[in-house]
Amino acid sequence: MSASHYAYLGPEGTFTEAALRTLPEAATRELVPMVSVPAALDAVRGGEAAAALVPIENSVEGGVTATLDELATGAPLMIYREVLLRIAFALLVRPGTRLSDIKTVTGHPVAQPQVRKWLAAHLPDAQWESAASNADGARLVRDGRYDAAFAGEFAAPTYGLEPLVTDIHDARNAETRFVLAGRPARPAARTGADRTSLVVWLRDDHPGALMELLQEFSARGVNLTWIESRPTGEGMGRYCFSIDCEGHIGDRRVAETLMGLKRICPNVRFLGSYPRAGAEPGGVPQTAVRPGTADADYVAAAEWLARCQDGRA
Amino acid sequence: MSASHYAYLGPEGTFTEAALRTLPEAATRELVPMVSVPAALDAVRGGEAAAALVPIENSVEGGVTATLDELATGAPLMIYREVLLRIAFALLVRPGTRLSDIKTVTGHPVAQPQVRKWLAAHLPDAQWESAASNADGARLVRDGRYDAAFAGEFAAPTYGLEPLVTDIHDARNAETRFVLAGRPARPAARTGADRTSLVVWLRDDHPGALMELLQEFSARGVNLTWIESRPTGEGMGRYCFSIDCEGHIGDRRVAETLMGLKRICPNVRFLGSYPRAGAEPGGVPQTAVRPGTADADYVAAAEWLARCQDGRA
Amino acid sequence: MSASHYAYLGPEGTFTEAALRTLPEAATRELVPMVSVPAALDAVRGGEAAAALVPIENSVEGGVTATLDELATGAPLMIYREVLLRIAFALLVRPGTRLSDIKTVTGHPVAQPQVRKWLAAHLPDAQWESAASNADGARLVRDGRYDAAFAGEFAAPTYGLEPLVTDIHDARNAETRFVLAGRPARPAARTGADRTSLVVWLRDDHPGALMELLQEFSARGVNLTWIESRPTGEGMGRYCFSIDCEGHIGDRRVAETLMGLKRICPNVRFLGSYPRAGAEPGGVPQTAVRPGTADADYVAAAEWLARCQDGRA
Amino acid sequence: MSASHYAYLGPEGTFTEAALRTLPEAATRELVPMVSVPAALDAVRGGEAAAALVPIENSVEGGVTATLDELATGAPLMIYREVLLRIAFALLVRPGTRLSDIKTVTGHPVAQPQVRKWLAAHLPDAQWESAASNADGARLVRDGRYDAAFAGEFAAPTYGLEPLVTDIHDARNAETRFVLAGRPARPAARTGADRTSLVVWLRDDHPGALMELLQEFSARGVNLTWIESRPTGEGMGRYCFSIDCEGHIGDRRVAETLMGLKRICPNVRFLGSYPRAGAEPGGVPQTAVRPGTADADYVAAAEWLARCQDGRA
Repeated sequence: MSASHYAYLGPEGTFTEAALRTLPEAATRELVPMVSVPAALDAVRGGEAAAALVPIENSVEGGVTATLDELATGAPLMIYREVLLRIAFALLVRPGTRLSDIKTVTGHPVAQPQVRKWLAAHLPDAQWESAASNADGARLVRDGRYDAAFAGEFAAPTYGLEPLVTDIHDARNAETRFVLAGRPARPAARTGADRTSLVVWLRDDHPGALMELLQEFSARGVNLTWIESRPTGEGMGRYCFSIDCEGHIGDRRVAETLMGLKRICPNVRFLGSYPRAGAEPGGVPQTAVRPGTADADYVAAAEWLARCQDGRA
Repeated sequence: MSASHYAYLGPEGTFTEAALRTLPEAATRELVPMVSVPAALDAVRGGEAAAALVPIENSVEGGVTATLDELATGAPLMIYREVLLRIAFALLVRPGTRLSDIKTVTGHPVAQPQVRKWLAAHLPDAQWESAASNADGARLVRDGRYDAAFAGEFAAPTYGLEPLVTDIHDARNAETRFVLAGRPARPAARTGADRTSLVVWLRDDHPGALMELLQEFSARGVNLTWIESRPTGEGMGRYCFSIDCEGHIGDRRVAETLMGLKRICPNVRFLGSYPRAGAEPGGVPQTAVRPGTADADYVAAAEWLARCQDGRA
Repeated sequence: MSASHYAYLGPEGTFTEAALRTLPEAATRELVPMVSVPAALDAVRGGEAAAALVPIENSVEGGVTATLDELATGAPLMIYREVLLRIAFALLVRPGTRLSDIKTVTGHPVAQPQVRKWLAAHLPDAQWESAASNADGARLVRDGRYDAAFAGEFAAPTYGLEPLVTDIHDARNAETRFVLAGRPARPAARTGADRTSLVVWLRDDHPGALMELLQEFSARGVNLTWIESRPTGEGMGRYCFSIDCEGHIGDRRVAETLMGLKRICPNVRFLGSYPRAGAEPGGVPQTAVRPGTADADYVAAAEWLARCQDGRA
Repeated sequence: MSASHYAYLGPEGTFTEAALRTLPEAATRELVPMVSVPAALDAVRGGEAAAALVPIENSVEGGVTATLDELATGAPLMIYREVLLRIAFALLVRPGTRLSDIKTVTGHPVAQPQVRKWLAAHLPDAQWESAASNADGARLVRDGRYDAAFAGEFAAPTYGLEPLVTDIHDARNAETRFVLAGRPARPAARTGADRTSLVVWLRDDHPGALMELLQEFSARGVNLTWIESRPTGEGMGRYCFSIDCEGHIGDRRVAETLMGLKRICPNVRFLGSYPRAGAEPGGVPQTAVRPGTADADYVAAAEWLARCQDGRA
């Protein structure tokens, strides 16, 4: 692996690889599968990879805690891109296997809740065993350990398998959001439809402490798109907050919000501002900017303040 | 009157004159009594006086609406100083008059509620008639129109009267706050115990509009010391808000609050930042600065933001 | 005066009397002019009058502090009705007086700012002296003490004067709001377009104390229509708050707001819920009820809570 | 299985079973291991078990999403008890195995991050493969499929294994919180140190929508202890909120908060009020009740309101 490579949560044939291949900048890079999210991110931290693509959120399962926690701790990383990938599973089997032959199925633990209803309807008696990844499950089927694996259809040729059933997904609109993380540098350019990610630690735990934090956003019309209490490791009931909001650190209202958080919180980790991946289908469009919170309003207010301070208002 | 004179709400012998004489800078100025608050402030606007001292608030009667409204409208003025004066009335009479001789008393309408209980106890049958000012009341007693006038004890010699009773005040701690207003220029220097005055117009009148306004203060730990709905002149139920808060436009938290108001309100009039007059007796001390809202916190947060924007956080 | 009489701020011929006569219930009562707002309200407190009509707010001058403060202190009173009266002055003179004859004018101090521009334009050299009331000014003109008085046109015949000019008012939409106050009893019936008045004392004076108070309103979608810091008499900088909001104590959202205030404030004085006077012209219409704050929403939520507590949700 | 049995997330020998055995009421019940959290909870829904104990939160990994999501959807369940269990792993091996013999290790995916540092330090070359549960990992070691399993030390005898190393845990204070869920009935009795769990759906997604929700808590001094965005299944970016707060539905401030949420949210699911498990070690003590939010304050305010409505305040 070299410093120009892109790491991703492997092995080959995972949805993460498929997501990474949708990025134009990945076309000219060597893509290196890593055994885990921490391994992929540590490769970036260690300078062995330029960036790493890892899943951060699934529209069925919610946040990918390994990714959230890896980004919240350790040497800082920043997010530069996000990719949304629609998730639909194929049931991969060795050539010749019929549905009625299937006694055991495998797949990543995260896949299970996404195919549970399908399994109950079509293979009610099949026994599920978890694999380290969807691709790994495919490998185990190739090796004869299980009869079928849930994985992306694109993984079939890699492992000499056939997709017996395709487009399996219990939930409509199942999608996974992946982020491309690199070492800290200038944030991605502002596009007008951006997302900012951060982790915030509260000073203490009085009633309303969390609301004071959120007030920094709402007072400036910045829309939260995600909040999750994450354990700090200091014991049950001690949390930091993983937060996403709309907008870019280059937007004044977001910059002011970040500074407001920094003032009232003992620790704020800025995880980057980056373009929001295309919202369709099923996504939520960018919220309209509230009157008085556009950059022009900030500039006008700062000019007015300067006039007041000079006695020219 | 010349451009270096100080105007004040006259006539001579009023509490306003007494307050003005407590200001060191008044010692070298010619002091010119004006017939009304508007007249005093218009003298400043027109360049005929350098500044004008007018009452703005009384600890018994509340805000002096003539002053609040004059400052809120017309050509802008700014407040540079405030003076607190303890208010105690003397009952002024022509030499020889005894308490039992008094059938009619006069004084400024604002004086009446401050001596009402004393009157009920000591002169229950005396008839009250309002005068244009306390000093004017004294003049009318001199001229024989009334038997006694409530005024400052210092007004007695001017009108050839005697203080029959002194230190009359229904309320303990009766004080009046006066402000020295001039044409807009750089605010008074920051002292660390300052007050900022402003007038704010709301964009509309939805539930919570006023709270959004106040949130700009509370989110930054800026303590409001005064708020009053004032009619805008557009009809019953249409108000702007006369507001005082602790702190100075040179304090970051106050500057940010002002800019926040400017962004969400169609109109904000900055009326100045100036040293708070000595709080004793009966006054309210400066509130402690809330953690995270000192200038150093703002500087630190801005530096942190710059590092985030450069990828060095 | 008897217990069935209605008192009002006199003397006869004031706008207050004119406002009182617009009330149907006043037609069958004997109406008794009182010398001052405190006298009118004390007549009610003492059982000598059933109710008293006093001015509480003027669309040009703002709140009538004598009324606000009298209602905030002393034996409790409650407001049962409000009356809006358009204010336009007539210039009353002795028969035969021409405009060019007028050297001195009088009127209530509150009238002066409402006719100041007219005076400056039409009688720039006339000298103003304040009278105890507009009607009293008319009396002084009749007695030859002044040349002209500003008063309601309806006051002319009482004092044998003629209206030389009518419909004088510097501000468009000048109106005064009067309230009919009585001893505490059941509030006026709910109409769906009501106002509730109260006085609130804060526990302490930390930054945000006022916002916590206002949050009790905004959290329940109750629209404030009026707020004014009023001195408590404990010294400069010590205030209570005179507050009006939309809605009726019989509305659940208002009742909950009142209870919320009662819990966080050391003292809350409920001054009544009563029909809002007709908003036209120039008035502000009732704000739409925010979703989730209608009585039906409160009832539904209470029923749901009961089900939760019973394990039936 | 019968309706009086207690189900739990199996198989035998898991931490969940150990947690369940700490409950006195479990001593007289038959305890039935279930294959998954959904299976355990469905057994309760279907009447085949009286209650089920499932993990809901881990102090290292955060919320157990399978449990959060199962409680948020489907037929309603309620939480009646919580159990805190300190988590320390033993490395279980077949008798005679030495540390240097270990090439492969297994355990539940949740265990991996809790032993990752220990593995890196002591078995850097061992290969990890996930098992369906810690106990299942032990079974696979017994069967010779892996060399060692991370599990509770108490699981060793069940599977004929030996604890080679004990008290393994990367994080100090690692604990898991389990909840005992049953069909809806009256909540557990109030103890004064309770927790309330709920799931809330927002009406829409405007900036500040989440803060309006949280304001219902903060306005009443109710302390949030947990919040997590959970996908609603309607697509990326659509969330409900899993929330825990201090207090009991029988506390007025909590009841009022719940009703407040019910009014502004299209859907609120009450998941129960139950005693907080002992906070030591590492737990967070109950927050002091804010002045004005105790039941006595609510009662006093309601009585005052009744007096206002009757004209007796």
